Amino acid sequence: MAKSQLKDFNKDLSEWFTDVVLKAELADYAPVKGCMVIRPYGYALWEGIQSFLDKLIKEKGVQNAYFPLFIPMHYLQKEKEHIAGFSPQLAIVTIGGGEKLSENLAVRPTSETIMYDMYKKWTNSWRDLPILINQWCNIVRWEKRTYLFLRTSEFLWQEGHCAHLTHEESMNMVLWALDAYEKTYNDLLAMYGIKGVKSDSEKFAGAGRTYSFECLMPNGKALQSATSHDLGQNFSKSFDWTVQDKNKEKIFPWQNSWGLSTRAIGGLIMAHGDQNGLVFPPNIAPIQVVIVPIPNHKLAPIKSQELKDQLKNKFRVQLDQVDDETTGFKFNKWELKGVPLRIEVGDRDLASSSVIIHRRDTGEKITVALADLEVKIRDLLSDVQNNLFTKHKKFTEEHTFTVSSYDEFKKIMTTTRGFIKAHWCEDSDCENEIKKDTKATTRCLPLDSKEEKGKCIRCGKDSHHRWLFALSY
Amino acid sequence: MAKSQLKDFNKDLSEWFTDVVLKAELADYAPVKGCMVIRPYGYALWEGIQSFLDKLIKEKGVQNAYFPLFIPMHYLQKEKEHIAGFSPQLAIVTIGGGEKLSENLAVRPTSETIMYDMYKKWTNSWRDLPILINQWCNIVRWEKRTYLFLRTSEFLWQEGHCAHLTHEESMNMVLWALDAYEKTYNDLLAMYGIKGVKSDSEKFAGAGRTYSFECLMPNGKALQSATSHDLGQNFSKSFDWTVQDKNKEKIFPWQNSWGLSTRAIGGLIMAHGDQNGLVFPPNIAPIQVVIVPIPNHKLAPIKSQELKDQLKNKFRVQLDQVDDETTGFKFNKWELKGVPLRIEVGDRDLASSSVIIHRRDTGEKITVALADLEVKIRDLLSDVQNNLFTKHKKFTEEHTFTVSSYDEFKKIMTTTRGFIKAHWCEDSDCENEIKKDTKATTRCLPLDSKEEKGKCIRCGKDSHHRWLFALSY
Repeated sequence: MAKSQLKDFNKDLSEWFTDVVLKAELADYAPVKGCMVIRPYGYALWEGIQSFLDKLIKEKGVQNAYFPLFIPMHYLQKEKEHIAGFSPQLAIVTIGGGEKLSENLAVRPTSETIMYDMYKKWTNSWRDLPILINQWCNIVRWEKRTYLFLRTSEFLWQEGHCAHLTHEESMNMVLWALDAYEKTYNDLLAMYGIKGVKSDSEKFAGAGRTYSFECLMPNGKALQSATSHDLGQNFSKSFDWTVQDKNKEKIFPWQNSWGLSTRAIGGLIMAHGDQNGLVFPPNIAPIQVVIVPIPNHKLAPIKSQELKDQLKNKFRVQLDQVDDETTGFKFNKWELKGVPLRIEVGDRDLASSSVIIHRRDTGEKITVALADLEVKIRDLLSDVQNNLFTKHKKFTEEHTFTVSSYDEFKKIMTTTRGFIKAHWCEDSDCENEIKKDTKATTRCLPLDSKEEKGKCIRCGKDSHHRWLFALSY
Repeated sequence: MAKSQLKDFNKDLSEWFTDVVLKAELADYAPVKGCMVIRPYGYALWEGIQSFLDKLIKEKGVQNAYFPLFIPMHYLQKEKEHIAGFSPQLAIVTIGGGEKLSENLAVRPTSETIMYDMYKKWTNSWRDLPILINQWCNIVRWEKRTYLFLRTSEFLWQEGHCAHLTHEESMNMVLWALDAYEKTYNDLLAMYGIKGVKSDSEKFAGAGRTYSFECLMPNGKALQSATSHDLGQNFSKSFDWTVQDKNKEKIFPWQNSWGLSTRAIGGLIMAHGDQNGLVFPPNIAPIQVVIVPIPNHKLAPIKSQELKDQLKNKFRVQLDQVDDETTGFKFNKWELKGVPLRIEVGDRDLASSSVIIHRRDTGEKITVALADLEVKIRDLLSDVQNNLFTKHKKFTEEHTFTVSSYDEFKKIMTTTRGFIKAHWCEDSDCENEIKKDTKATTRCLPLDSKEEKGKCIRCGKDSHHRWLFALSY
């Protein structure tokens, strides 16, 4: 558990990532290729995300439900772009109860088709809209190259699926979801990011438009951190689903879907981590404060237990009672696990009625009088949360480059990398060529981007906006 | 939505059940045979159960985690009774990412085998035990004859899986889980039931002993409502999983697993329902209080909104604002949905600063002064909760028969049915014959049963306990 055991954070983030995920016991490889086991310390992060986001979802009036894992193949085939997009990634059940099935079943790669068939069954008129439904579930998309949390053949997510009478109402929900994701990243995970609309080639299979929240990782790669899709009437038309409006005319409902997955945990780990391991923002940290009695100090164990009893209903506290580890080993262990604050309880400090608090994010050690402990912890947790967000925002801004030549673009992509703001003609061939040349893809057109006349960075054709480019996960 | 629309509760409970599940919008049939869609009003019940039980689980120190959906076939085959029990019910993935898989994958019918393989990987010594893990997930067991909530090919559940150094510690967890289930049924779902141990032929495939909580339904059939398994060392031996104990001896860990599923919702619906529809205990009811302004009364709508605002942070309240339904239609609609209390807001009562509260469980109407409203609602909700539990307990006791002859046994099974307490020789052939003759199976040997000498009801051999028999779901 010595610090040197972790792979080099700056040299190879992906090796460090796998190393820290396994050593901090967040997850492990499953015996099935491409799947992972989310261990309790990692699952607690998902529970934290669920609890935060589910509250926002319910406040918006969206209700949770549960739809089947299996989707008959002919359902997936109803929307042509949809099946084309997902068919290479399907896991398919061909045998059930000992018999070959008459129709193969796909394990859901997303639930649009199975849900909308039911929506059609449940609705007749404008009175039955909007439908505001979300589900928390597992999803399977077969992957050749996998990566713990970031890309696994099975993952967990929530998928919201709403249907409305008008496009305007549906768009309101699309953007609400994007804001809810931004809030979750900013306020819970202390991560900064950019909201924007995806290019046609990067949008969801079956969507009219896809919106995403993009975060920059320390290696200059972008992580698409959540998406919200304006499905238009694509699915309602494919399913021949109409409802009668107030004028007794048949209309095809306007739909949207939006999702955030366990991938968010991958982003969280990378965004804040360092050479010593994980660094968790207090709002999401499964353990906010760890109390470590200094080994072989006489008064430390009893006082530590008292402190735990005092703090346990106010913070998420753990007391380290393992009895055969050195001080250094214990400190490294909890730093690896990313616990925001460590209270070091030693006899010398106790003699002056104080303890030392160590901040995981800055490494600072602060002597705190026992009388002030609760207030100080509360302040420090709030400081750490803010500091991590500010730091990630600053990093992102410092690695966002506005470029005006293709050479400059290429140079950034071979050095620091990062977000590149560049003019693009919005032609997908040109987008492909840029990807071939530089590995960068369009991440999004930021929602706050202003109209600005320019020339496409590659082909020189007219452009009206600067798009955001990056190498992506 | 008229009352007469529901199938006859007393004549055919199963027809009534399907009818009420569909009409109250708890669930619907999915396009995949044997699967169901849990609609928001039904899913809210599951969220209530999750929230109650998850708290108990966490208080016990058990942590949530997530293991893969897919289990390689050779894992399932490691424990012989286990694979024999589950193989007829498997859904099997044979194609992934467009290619035939080299080893077929079972969609988890339960997670013992995939979890214990990881447990083996994670442990070396006694320091690594106990392992206390639970997961909330979906499960697939292919069923030929299905029944909404009670038996579906896919269902939701929690499965706790713990491993310990000693059998005593493991048994402590087995019985703790059984108590947690009893508490969930009693305190949340207002259902009475019997805890006991299953006979060998009724135990879980791979368990040493299975304990269950059995509830009696209004048609005299028993519902196995949750189970907790003492797995002994069966799985650790099959997986060749040992850890070093304090004396540096290798020992096989002692294991247990325990689960409660969406089947509980089926029990809840039947246990309390009546000819008018669902009757929900307030602690689990998604809506505890519905406010219905009497149509065409002038002051009712404004006052109703005020009442909602007053009550909404204290109770789960809904205001019925639909404007083109009659009073009778509205009342029936909310009775069908099982809402415990209905507040009828009419101008005449408002003139004397009061409203009428209708109790779903008894049908009583009570005039309540607005000034006393909150206190009265709190008292009534508590009354309803207690009344429903008492009623279900009384029903169960009145339908529990201690019999001393096989004729008496058979007569009960062809008339009222119910729980039958009878001596049995504990021979499985005899158990089979009783099932053939009467359709009754052993439900359990109640934990509180006292040793009592007698003769087997069927074969006359010596018996030391009265077992609980019933026709079961």
